[in-house]
Amino acid sequence: MSTKKKDTQEKMVASRRRFLQAGIAGGATLATAAIARAEGDPLITEIQDWARYTGEGVDATPYGMPIKYEADVVRRNVEWLTADTISSINFTPIHALDGTITPQGCAFERHHSGAIELRKEDYRLMINGLVDTPLVFTYDDLVRFPRENHVYFCECAANSGMEWAGAQLNGAQFTHGMIHNMEYSGVPLRTLLEEAGIAAAGDLKDKWVYVEGADASSNGRSIPMEKALDDCLVAFKANGEALRMEHGYPVRLVVPGWEGNLWVKWLRRIEVVDAAVESREETSKYTDTLADGTSRKWTWEMDAKSVVTSPSPQSPITHGQGPLVITGLAWTGRGHITGVDVSLDGGKNWQEARLAAPGVDKALTRFYLDINWDGSEMFLQSRARDNTGYVQPTKDQLREVRGYNSIYHNNGIQTWWVRPNGEAENVEVS
Amino acid sequence: MSTKKKDTQEKMVASRRRFLQAGIAGGATLATAAIARAEGDPLITEIQDWARYTGEGVDATPYGMPIKYEADVVRRNVEWLTADTISSINFTPIHALDGTITPQGCAFERHHSGAIELRKEDYRLMINGLVDTPLVFTYDDLVRFPRENHVYFCECAANSGMEWAGAQLNGAQFTHGMIHNMEYSGVPLRTLLEEAGIAAAGDLKDKWVYVEGADASSNGRSIPMEKALDDCLVAFKANGEALRMEHGYPVRLVVPGWEGNLWVKWLRRIEVVDAAVESREETSKYTDTLADGTSRKWTWEMDAKSVVTSPSPQSPITHGQGPLVITGLAWTGRGHITGVDVSLDGGKNWQEARLAAPGVDKALTRFYLDINWDGSEMFLQSRARDNTGYVQPTKDQLREVRGYNSIYHNNGIQTWWVRPNGEAENVEVS
Repeated sequence: MSTKKKDTQEKMVASRRRFLQAGIAGGATLATAAIARAEGDPLITEIQDWARYTGEGVDATPYGMPIKYEADVVRRNVEWLTADTISSINFTPIHALDGTITPQGCAFERHHSGAIELRKEDYRLMINGLVDTPLVFTYDDLVRFPRENHVYFCECAANSGMEWAGAQLNGAQFTHGMIHNMEYSGVPLRTLLEEAGIAAAGDLKDKWVYVEGADASSNGRSIPMEKALDDCLVAFKANGEALRMEHGYPVRLVVPGWEGNLWVKWLRRIEVVDAAVESREETSKYTDTLADGTSRKWTWEMDAKSVVTSPSPQSPITHGQGPLVITGLAWTGRGHITGVDVSLDGGKNWQEARLAAPGVDKALTRFYLDINWDGSEMFLQSRARDNTGYVQPTKDQLREVRGYNSIYHNNGIQTWWVRPNGEAENVEVS
Repeated sequence: MSTKKKDTQEKMVASRRRFLQAGIAGGATLATAAIARAEGDPLITEIQDWARYTGEGVDATPYGMPIKYEADVVRRNVEWLTADTISSINFTPIHALDGTITPQGCAFERHHSGAIELRKEDYRLMINGLVDTPLVFTYDDLVRFPRENHVYFCECAANSGMEWAGAQLNGAQFTHGMIHNMEYSGVPLRTLLEEAGIAAAGDLKDKWVYVEGADASSNGRSIPMEKALDDCLVAFKANGEALRMEHGYPVRLVVPGWEGNLWVKWLRRIEVVDAAVESREETSKYTDTLADGTSRKWTWEMDAKSVVTSPSPQSPITHGQGPLVITGLAWTGRGHITGVDVSLDGGKNWQEARLAAPGVDKALTRFYLDINWDGSEMFLQSRARDNTGYVQPTKDQLREVRGYNSIYHNNGIQTWWVRPNGEAENVEVS
């Protein structure tokens, strides 16, 4: 039997806690219903059609899709948010997901000139600039280099960016859904730079790489050489299979912990340069407006952040009072999550949430707080802490520095007002 | 910048190794081609249509599918293997995947009377038998209990079962593809048993649970109480989203490290009993024929096993000699993988492979061996080791005990004969 030797009898007695029957009003009601169903619910006592007849043959789904009953768990756009359809954003339905892995099929996607169809056979990656030997790799070349696998989150710098001026979008999918978390397989960018040889670049401390994609936008960005040689991946698989078209098939750059705009899709060229290029995407865009009207740039790292995904406006409480699972996600681009606190009263009192697993470097962490809800209104908040000692700030704290007119890097604490009927709404408390 | 302070210059120099240009014949050819392309490959020097025009708008894919160029990365059946279409097996295309997570869309599926469509609203889970209070839970009840998340592999006991009498199926998908590895979210089975109360069962050491599904087969199986109280999960999500129909939507049992047949789908009933039920699925099926013609049962745990997924018959070497990534998967139901050895010569000599990450309890581990292939034939093998000290056996070692007529629990070492032209074939060596 199991290699873990346990005295099950002892363990059973020690943790005996009849959860729903514990005497809390909602729990007792729930237990009563569960007992009553055991005596007379035809859905359990009578033979149903699905037990009487055979179901669908497996050959019907060589590649499967979610069952039709889950048709609402999909990416969604906010129509007014971007100027045109080829430059829009489809948000991850984080309110309906659990765990930490984001399936590619519903992982947020954002691009600046549409998703392109690029065959592996037509794929080329150039490394040029201050290198010993300029090189152009095919896809088949890339898969011959030693590979690594890592789970990383990718968050758009503009995630929650619509909330600077106040609570606006009514759902975790829209306020925090520009994020996904996948297991990437690829070649370290370092390996490819060393293949081209970077002795020609001289002192690497002052050098940068400029990375661009094969799509019409090219989405060029400058990355300091230190980061390029640290943990960036030239990735071709996510969650085990090929990248999806909308995520940069066949090859994208993975820049762990840094804003998603740097994760260039359809990666076409990496140029070693002696200064940042100051491209459109890092000057007029992806810089942070401050309270005094000036802007700051080079804010690549995503600070610690969290959100309660359920209950939330798109995931109301439907079962009334009693046992309630409060759950959400936390992440930090600077390392790993060490703890998450949850408040039921808008930040006056905090309880430490349970992390489903120890924090993973630059990856999502799932947290839970199991409560007995008495049916009164709540102002639900979560607050992430990371291994650098950083604590997720309130929106007001952020605004003292950043003002109200920013777009990017809003990692302020989110509040959901949960009403006695279980419905939730995006609000701010102060 | 990064919190990890590194002297990039020093690090760069220390690990300088120009991989493709290292002087090996194939590598040098590859590097020459990469240099030549930098000077004149129109796919990198000329503007292509995908950079000239905008691509597909994001609204087109609220739930995305793989790009059309990956249409061959799908589950496949072996027509002669099972008697009819509602009792067939669709194998994971492990030869084409990397990393460790299996996307639900191509994760193997096997059922005994078809995949059924069961709505959450119609779902019921009964706990009865030797319990203090028989209970019937709805789906909404289940999601009110404290949840856990874990990544586990699920392997059919019959995985590789067609190979007992000799090498037969020509591809890792068919020989080893009855396995998947997903992140499950659910409620510990222990929690639900304690909710019903198991004091009535007396001494738990002698007790069992009998679990069955809502489909026509019911697929009833007996599980010792020690395992039921240890790490089993009543799961409703996999890789973050709802289970797929073919994996038991809305609720399946997860029995970590144990044969997949126990992972009952559309989980309908858990009965606490004082002896194993000796159902069809644990007597005429899922018992192991031995060399002397007798059978043994209760072989639930999946022993340590591994397979090279690439190169393999469905994933030949197409790039000729030079740098080659050999990769595969390893797993054990008894704990975690501590190492994998790879042989290029049919088991005469072994090299230790690189694990992509430390072994995770009862989850898949990805391994790599990066070699410079000289173009001569190879007899590729992999051999897994786990934390109990167990070493994956040869097929001949297994046959000494099990004979040639078994179906289940074949974890013998697999051999791929790789020919100088890069094609591979399923063979045995002795």
